[in-house]
Amino acid sequence: MLRMSTLFLRTLREDPADAELASHKLMVRAGYIRRAAPGIYTWLPLGLRVLAKVEAIVREEMEAAGSQEVHFPALLPKEPYEATGRWDDYGPNLFRLADRKGTDMLLAPTHEEMFALVVKDMYTSYKDLPLSLFQIQTKYRDEARPRAGLLRGREFIMKDAYSFDIDDEGLERSYKTQREAYIRIFDRLGLEYVIVNAMSGAMGGSKSEEFLSPTEVGEDTFVRSPGGYTANVEAVTTPAPPALDWSDAPAAHVEDTPDTPTIETLVAAANANHPRPDRAWTAADTLKNVVIAATNPAGERGLMVVGLPGDREVDLTRLEAAVAPATVEPATEEDLKAHPELVKGYIGPAALGPQVRPEGVEFLSDEDSTIPYMLDPRVVEGTRWITGANVRGKHVFDLVAGRDFVGDGTIEAAEVRAGDPAPDGTGPLELARGVEIGHIFQLGRKYAEALELKVLDENGKQRVVTMGSYGIGVTRAVALLAELNNDEAGLAWPAHVAPYHVHVMATGKDDAAFAAAEDLAADLESRGVEVLYDDRAKVSPGVKFKDAELIGAPFVAVVGRSLADGVIEVGPRAGGERTAVPVADASETIVRMVDEALGR
Amino acid sequence: MLRMSTLFLRTLREDPADAELASHKLMVRAGYIRRAAPGIYTWLPLGLRVLAKVEAIVREEMEAAGSQEVHFPALLPKEPYEATGRWDDYGPNLFRLADRKGTDMLLAPTHEEMFALVVKDMYTSYKDLPLSLFQIQTKYRDEARPRAGLLRGREFIMKDAYSFDIDDEGLERSYKTQREAYIRIFDRLGLEYVIVNAMSGAMGGSKSEEFLSPTEVGEDTFVRSPGGYTANVEAVTTPAPPALDWSDAPAAHVEDTPDTPTIETLVAAANANHPRPDRAWTAADTLKNVVIAATNPAGERGLMVVGLPGDREVDLTRLEAAVAPATVEPATEEDLKAHPELVKGYIGPAALGPQVRPEGVEFLSDEDSTIPYMLDPRVVEGTRWITGANVRGKHVFDLVAGRDFVGDGTIEAAEVRAGDPAPDGTGPLELARGVEIGHIFQLGRKYAEALELKVLDENGKQRVVTMGSYGIGVTRAVALLAELNNDEAGLAWPAHVAPYHVHVMATGKDDAAFAAAEDLAADLESRGVEVLYDDRAKVSPGVKFKDAELIGAPFVAVVGRSLADGVIEVGPRAGGERTAVPVADASETIVRMVDEALGR
Repeated sequence: MLRMSTLFLRTLREDPADAELASHKLMVRAGYIRRAAPGIYTWLPLGLRVLAKVEAIVREEMEAAGSQEVHFPALLPKEPYEATGRWDDYGPNLFRLADRKGTDMLLAPTHEEMFALVVKDMYTSYKDLPLSLFQIQTKYRDEARPRAGLLRGREFIMKDAYSFDIDDEGLERSYKTQREAYIRIFDRLGLEYVIVNAMSGAMGGSKSEEFLSPTEVGEDTFVRSPGGYTANVEAVTTPAPPALDWSDAPAAHVEDTPDTPTIETLVAAANANHPRPDRAWTAADTLKNVVIAATNPAGERGLMVVGLPGDREVDLTRLEAAVAPATVEPATEEDLKAHPELVKGYIGPAALGPQVRPEGVEFLSDEDSTIPYMLDPRVVEGTRWITGANVRGKHVFDLVAGRDFVGDGTIEAAEVRAGDPAPDGTGPLELARGVEIGHIFQLGRKYAEALELKVLDENGKQRVVTMGSYGIGVTRAVALLAELNNDEAGLAWPAHVAPYHVHVMATGKDDAAFAAAEDLAADLESRGVEVLYDDRAKVSPGVKFKDAELIGAPFVAVVGRSLADGVIEVGPRAGGERTAVPVADASETIVRMVDEALGR
Repeated sequence: MLRMSTLFLRTLREDPADAELASHKLMVRAGYIRRAAPGIYTWLPLGLRVLAKVEAIVREEMEAAGSQEVHFPALLPKEPYEATGRWDDYGPNLFRLADRKGTDMLLAPTHEEMFALVVKDMYTSYKDLPLSLFQIQTKYRDEARPRAGLLRGREFIMKDAYSFDIDDEGLERSYKTQREAYIRIFDRLGLEYVIVNAMSGAMGGSKSEEFLSPTEVGEDTFVRSPGGYTANVEAVTTPAPPALDWSDAPAAHVEDTPDTPTIETLVAAANANHPRPDRAWTAADTLKNVVIAATNPAGERGLMVVGLPGDREVDLTRLEAAVAPATVEPATEEDLKAHPELVKGYIGPAALGPQVRPEGVEFLSDEDSTIPYMLDPRVVEGTRWITGANVRGKHVFDLVAGRDFVGDGTIEAAEVRAGDPAPDGTGPLELARGVEIGHIFQLGRKYAEALELKVLDENGKQRVVTMGSYGIGVTRAVALLAELNNDEAGLAWPAHVAPYHVHVMATGKDDAAFAAAEDLAADLESRGVEVLYDDRAKVSPGVKFKDAELIGAPFVAVVGRSLADGVIEVGPRAGGERTAVPVADASETIVRMVDEALGR
C-alpha cells in the first residue's frame, strides 16, 4: 500500500513551462517524472511503477516467444561500430566519448554489433540456430531536438531483440515470431497500432516494418489504402507512369516570363502570354527544381537539385530517408551564390546533371554543372514541362524528359498526398500521423558479414548468419499510454499499467473515516489489489479529489461523510460517477471491478 | 524451465586469458558473463538470473526499511556536479563527454547531487522529512586498472539510497535504519561482512562505515582489535605517544655514515661506529624521509616529504586517502633532480618544512625548502632521531623533534601493522583483506549546502537539509558470491541466489530417461522449484556432469542407468554425494531440499 502521507510526491497545479504534450505536462504535474536535462528524465515512484508494469508485459511476451534475456553494457568500444560503419553513419546522433586512456567509446543507440559478436564468440554451428535474444536496457541517442517529454528522449529504455538464423527462411520465421509477439504486447498494453512498411535508415537491412500508434501528436506520417497497403510516408514509393511518345512534341522554346519566380506566378504568366490550346496550364505542367544541401556523416556538405512536378513540395523527411545516413536542408543563399549557374526562381534542367542540350535553349556557361540532378519518378520519358531556362525572367516550354534532359537518377522526395495511388494498386492513400512504438528489421547479413559471424552449415562449410533486430520503445510506450489516456483533469491509466489499481481516499476530519479507509485499503491489498491510500490528515477533500484525478488510478473509493450512512462511494477514476456501496460490500465490489478490468 | 538444448550457453574448459580471480574465470567459463570492453561486461542468461535475484533481495529490504524506489538517468549535466566540486574532484575517474551542442555531461558515479535537486524541487517543509529514496541503477567509473572481472568494473550496477533529514538526530536515525537494512541484506545474501570505520574520499561528509567482506582477494585492508575496534586501514588513526622531556638530550651532531643510503645500512653503521651505550640502534630510532609526488584533480603535480620512523613503510593507499582527492606516487628521479636540497638516501628535516636550525648541522643552502614536510603522529616532541644530514654520506644523530625540527603537520601515511595498538585502546590490531560490498555515509550538509536544498523548519525558517548516502555494489555482490562459493570444478551457488535450484540431467540414450527427467523437471517447476534441464541428446554423461559442476546449481538430479532400478539419483551440487530415491519420491525429496535451503 502506498500512503500519500509518506509517498515521495508533489503534485503541481501548473503545467511545466517546457512541456507541450498532455502526457508530458501531466506526468510532471502528477509526480511521475522530472526532467534532469533536455531529453533526459528521472522516474519518480509512481512513474517507475508504470514503467515496471510495461516492462513486465514486454518481458513475458518475449519469453513466451522463445527469446532469452541478456543484458549488454551501454558504454561500448568503438571498434565493432566502426566495422559496420555505424560509428560514422549515426553522425551527431551518437554520444561519443573517450576514456582516461583516450580510447574511443560510445553510448549505444542499439546493440546489433554486440549481439553479433557474442553469438560469434559462443556459437559455431547451424545446430545452435535459430537463436533469439533480447534485453530491456537503457539506450542513448543525441537527438537534435529532444522534445515531447518521454516520447522522444536522449536516454531511454528500449527492448531490443535479435534473431540469428542460418538462412533466409529461418529469418522469415524468426521475424514472424517477433511480429506476432509485438502484436500481443501492444494488444496487452492497450495501444492501438498500424503495421506499416518502413525505411531501415541507419540500421540497414532488406526489409522493415514499423508499429505506429495513430495519434495527432505523432512525429511519423503514414499512409493506408482501402486495399490494405500501409507504409510510413518515408517508405512510400511513387508509381512511375508509363513513358510517353514524344514524337509529336514541338521543339523546346524559351519564352520571356518576367517576374515569375514562383510556380503560381509562372502558371499565371504562361496562361496569359503562352496559352495552351486544349486547356489551361496548371502547376502540374511545370517542373520545379529545388536546391537541397545534403550533409554526410563525415560532415561534408554538398548540393543536389530535386526536379519534381510544380504542384508538389519536397518532403524533407522523405528525402532524408532516401539519402540516409546523410541529412538534408534547403540550400541557403550562400549555397546558391557559390553556383552562379543556379539562377534562383529560374533553375532548369539544362544547367543540371548529365547534359542533353536542346537547340534554342541558352546556357549560362558551356561548363556542365557538377550538381547531381535527381528526378521525381513521375518525370518519365516523354513528359513535357515548363521549367526554368537558367536565365532570370525566362522559362523554357515543351522541354521533354528523355529528349531534352535527363537526370542522374530518380528519388523519392516529393510529398505524398491524400488521394495519391497506392504503389500496389490498392486504391487512393489516406494519411495519418502516428508514434513509432516498435520497429522490426530483417537485417540480413549486413552485420554478420562485417563482423564475420559465421557458423558451419550442414555441409561443414562456413556460412554467414542472417540476423533480424526488433525494438520496442519502452519509455515511449509509457509516454504514449499517458498521451492516449487522459483528460483535462489528469491521467487516466488503463488498469494493466496503472501505478496501482484503486485510489482510496479518507475525507473529512472524522477518525472513523480514516479507520474505515485504512481497513478497506488493507483488505484490498491482501486480496491482490494495489492501493494508493490518501491518508493525509489535514488536506481538504477538494485537494484530494484533484490529486486523485491528476494521478489517474482506474478506480476510486471515497470514505467520508456517507460513512455515517454505512456506505462507501466506489467508482471508476476520480471524476467519474460513484456508487454508494455498503461498507461490508465495498472491498468485494472493488475486487470485482479490478479483476474484470485486468481480465483475471 | 531452462532447457540446455536451447539455452544460450557455451561452457568453456579453458580459463579466459585475461582473468585472474576464480569468480572471473568461472563466470566466463560457465557462461554467465562475457567481457565487452575492459571493466565492462555483458550478462548472459544465467548471469542475469543471479543478478535479478540479488537485486530482488536488495529491493525488498530497502522497501522494508521505508525507502522509496526511483530511477535517475546515468547521463547527466555537469552543473550540479560542478556546484559540489565533484566534477573536478573525481579527476580521471569520471567519464566526461559533450553532447552535440557541446554541453558538458558526465556518466554518473553516484547521484547525491541529483537526489538533492529533486528533493529541492519537490519538498519545502520539515514536515516532508524524513525521506529515504533509493534506486538500482547503472553507474560508471573510469577505473585506472579495471581488473578482477565484475569485482571492479567501469560500468556496474549499484543500489544507491539517500536520506534527507531536518537535523543531525534525524540523520543519525536514518543512517541506523540503512545500516540495519544492510545487515539484513548481506545476511540474506549469505555474505560475511565486517563493518568498519572508513574514509569518505571524494564523497565527503562527516562519518562513514564500510561493509567489507573478508577475503584474500579483496583490494581493501581492514583492522580489528580484540576489543571490537574495526576500520578500513585507510581510516586507522595512529595514537600519538606522549611528548618526551628533551632537557637531558645531547645536542644534535653530524656523523660520517658513508654508504648508508638505506635504513638497514644506516642502522648497521650506527651500531658499528656510533654505538649506543644502553642498547643497539634499531630502525625505529631512525627518521625516514620519503619524497612523494601528489597530483590534484586539476592535474597539478607537487612534492611533499613524509617523515616517519625508519621501521615503517609509507602506505600509499593510506596516504592517498589522507590527501584525497589528490593522488600520490613515489617521487621520480626527475622530481629529485629539480630539488638539489633533496640528497637521495640522506634527506633530513633540516632541509624541509619550517626551519629550526640546530647548531652543528650543515645546510646545503640558506634557503628554506618550500616542500611541505608531514610527520607521522609518532614523531612527537622530544623524540630523538638518527636522520639524514642532507649531505651524501652523513647523518645527524640526536636530532630532537620540537627542539631541532618541526613539520608542517602530521599525516596518516605509515603502514599499519599487525600488533599496532587500536586507537581506542581496545588492544592490538590484526589485519585482514576484504571486498567493499557496502558503504554508508553521513554526508551532513555538504551537498545540500552546495545545491541550496533547504526546507522550512518548525519556526518557519529556511534550514539546510542534512543527507546520508548508502551504496551497495550489486554487480560486485554477484561477483563476490561467485568468488566465495566455488571449487576447482566450478561455481557452487547458495540456493537464494543460484540461477535456478536444481540441475536435472538425463543421461544415456534411453528415451525413458529423457521422458522421466522431463516429467520430473515439469513437476518440480509446477511446485515452485526452478529447474535447468539438461535435455541434450547427443552429449555424453561426462560432459553433462562437467557442465553441471561448472554451472553450480545447489542441487542435482540424475536420471540415467539407475532408472531401470526405479530410482533417480538426487544430491547437492554435481560432484557431491547422491542418494538413490525411488522415482515416485524424487520430486518430493527435491522440493524438501530446496525449501529447506531457501528457508521456506
